[in-house]
Amino acid sequence: MSFRLLAEDSGARRGALQTSHGTIRTPAFMPVGTQGSVKAVSPDELRQLGVEVVLGNTYHLALRPGALRIAELGGLHRFMAWDGAILTDSGGFQVFSLDHLVRVGEEGATFRSHLDGSQQDFTPESVMAVQRQLGSDIAMAFDEPVPWPSDTGRSRAAMERTHRWADRFLREPAGPGQLRFGIAQGGFDPSLRAESAQTLGVMAFDGFAVGGLSLGEPKPLTYELVALQTEQLPRDRPRYLMGVGTPLDLVEAVSRGIDLFDCVLPTRIARNGSVLTRGGRINLRNRRFAGDAGPLEDGCDCYACARFSRAYLRHLFMAGEILAHRLASIHNLRVLVRLVGELRDAIEAGRFHQVSARLREQWLAAPLP
Amino acid sequence: MSFRLLAEDSGARRGALQTSHGTIRTPAFMPVGTQGSVKAVSPDELRQLGVEVVLGNTYHLALRPGALRIAELGGLHRFMAWDGAILTDSGGFQVFSLDHLVRVGEEGATFRSHLDGSQQDFTPESVMAVQRQLGSDIAMAFDEPVPWPSDTGRSRAAMERTHRWADRFLREPAGPGQLRFGIAQGGFDPSLRAESAQTLGVMAFDGFAVGGLSLGEPKPLTYELVALQTEQLPRDRPRYLMGVGTPLDLVEAVSRGIDLFDCVLPTRIARNGSVLTRGGRINLRNRRFAGDAGPLEDGCDCYACARFSRAYLRHLFMAGEILAHRLASIHNLRVLVRLVGELRDAIEAGRFHQVSARLREQWLAAPLP
Repeated sequence: MSFRLLAEDSGARRGALQTSHGTIRTPAFMPVGTQGSVKAVSPDELRQLGVEVVLGNTYHLALRPGALRIAELGGLHRFMAWDGAILTDSGGFQVFSLDHLVRVGEEGATFRSHLDGSQQDFTPESVMAVQRQLGSDIAMAFDEPVPWPSDTGRSRAAMERTHRWADRFLREPAGPGQLRFGIAQGGFDPSLRAESAQTLGVMAFDGFAVGGLSLGEPKPLTYELVALQTEQLPRDRPRYLMGVGTPLDLVEAVSRGIDLFDCVLPTRIARNGSVLTRGGRINLRNRRFAGDAGPLEDGCDCYACARFSRAYLRHLFMAGEILAHRLASIHNLRVLVRLVGELRDAIEAGRFHQVSARLREQWLAAPLP
Repeated sequence: MSFRLLAEDSGARRGALQTSHGTIRTPAFMPVGTQGSVKAVSPDELRQLGVEVVLGNTYHLALRPGALRIAELGGLHRFMAWDGAILTDSGGFQVFSLDHLVRVGEEGATFRSHLDGSQQDFTPESVMAVQRQLGSDIAMAFDEPVPWPSDTGRSRAAMERTHRWADRFLREPAGPGQLRFGIAQGGFDPSLRAESAQTLGVMAFDGFAVGGLSLGEPKPLTYELVALQTEQLPRDRPRYLMGVGTPLDLVEAVSRGIDLFDCVLPTRIARNGSVLTRGGRINLRNRRFAGDAGPLEDGCDCYACARFSRAYLRHLFMAGEILAHRLASIHNLRVLVRLVGELRDAIEAGRFHQVSARLREQWLAAPLP
């Protein structure tokens, strides 16, 4: 088995996921490298931040520069000079979010490229082939999420197709050492969510994702559906909550048995001037930081906080200097990487209940958009 | 004296300029940090590149965030987290290039801020005060360049005013340990250029700049005027050719006794996808690099070349990823830093004639815009 469960505490899990590019200590946060680059951050900086795994987007990379191109250049790790682990998504979420979706059928989805309008087909088989070419450490099955809100009929149809696609996906060969995760769906219906986790849970996946959440539904419902699925999923394999990633979400989801996360939030808000701090989210464009000689966050050990002041970062944002994007992204990623580190330590120490209560309180007091 | 002349060879000089923030080995190239940041590059990366001095723009910093603000935050070094040397220009070049120049008189120049339209006055005294607040290691006198072409009357008037302003500038107090350079002008008239260098050369400056060149005049004229002025300037003080910086320009100017350079070229063309290589300038957006697994330049020791391929850089540029700007800027800066290093070694070894001939030939074969 690639996954070892090292400790459990109050519903939270501490594990180790072995990949061809190192061991991922879970719970783990995966920065998103949509187009083969975690925006504004270098691979060496990711390492310094304590990142062990990044996410690459199959949809974006397949369209540009193309999976075959990346394969010819030695695979995605070499292409982006990242020797840690890479998880590639299946493109399902992007394809079904597209305005240019042309047709969805039993075979797969047909859509037009947002880059050149060319017609593209994604099927469970093609999506496996693309991820094999990319050479990711973890490949995700092709799935069909549904928008919030969706009725039970639509949710059931998409869920059942997702299950059939999961089966087809598993019949394709994976790359050497490549792990494969299934994606549980079921819309926003608790019984469908439980059924999806049960159905996928017996398939030969190396791990499972909870997909199609955080699409606008109320947070309590998100957390309820996460808990429902982790209860049904096999205990001995990792669980990944896709696209979710405020600090509060991480605490809540880890307490419900989630091991892996990805989210664009830390890097996206950073480019807009927003940084996460223990005292709340601040926007560096605010005039009140113009003379602030302090670091982005007191006590933070990231490069941005070690070297630069809030006043300098504000100046860079106001002046349109792109070094600002890098420094704010580094800080925000460090906040999430440090948060999952605190959660791991707490689980190992049998103190998850106390630590998570403190962190929950802290981040409830520091709301995010 | 802050400057030691260590060797001379075929008109070229090898020196050491002592500042409050380290010794600058000359000939040296100064990357431009217009707004307190060498665009897309961190101070640690500048160090790794071998940079010893950067240029800051008085005009830009005085308008935003303001020199007083920077002084309150501990000065420009601390503000931008750069502990190497900083030379600040006087703003003369920017002010006289502005569309918003309101009035030039004996007292100074009045213009409108390009940021908020507010009226601003730059005088020899105010420009010294601003640079004292910034705390740069080398402060430049306020000067009046003239556009190409300009007639002798205009050139003489601006030159004579530049001399009077230089005198006023020197009557103001400098910051602790702050060196001051005068700027020789004279338009495009050889006899004025010689006169300006002679006049300034007897003033108590720590070094001298050749200003107001590379404004559209033919290159042979640029080089002729540079040679005319370096012949007249005191041998025991450093000479700085302002705003000039193609590789070929550096070789030509060093052979005419220039010690310091600044230019936005390496970082500006980098952000447009252009990189300097021994084989010529290439634009990474070109389709022919889509499958090129080689480094930006064979044998280059920069971070970008050590880790990434041309194909990856091309992808980043096509995808609009700002990591591309950083990596291409690092490479182009390294090319110029390495070039001045080769020139220094050649002068020390008494091989400047041969080495400069080779480099001249190389860069003549690789023309730049």
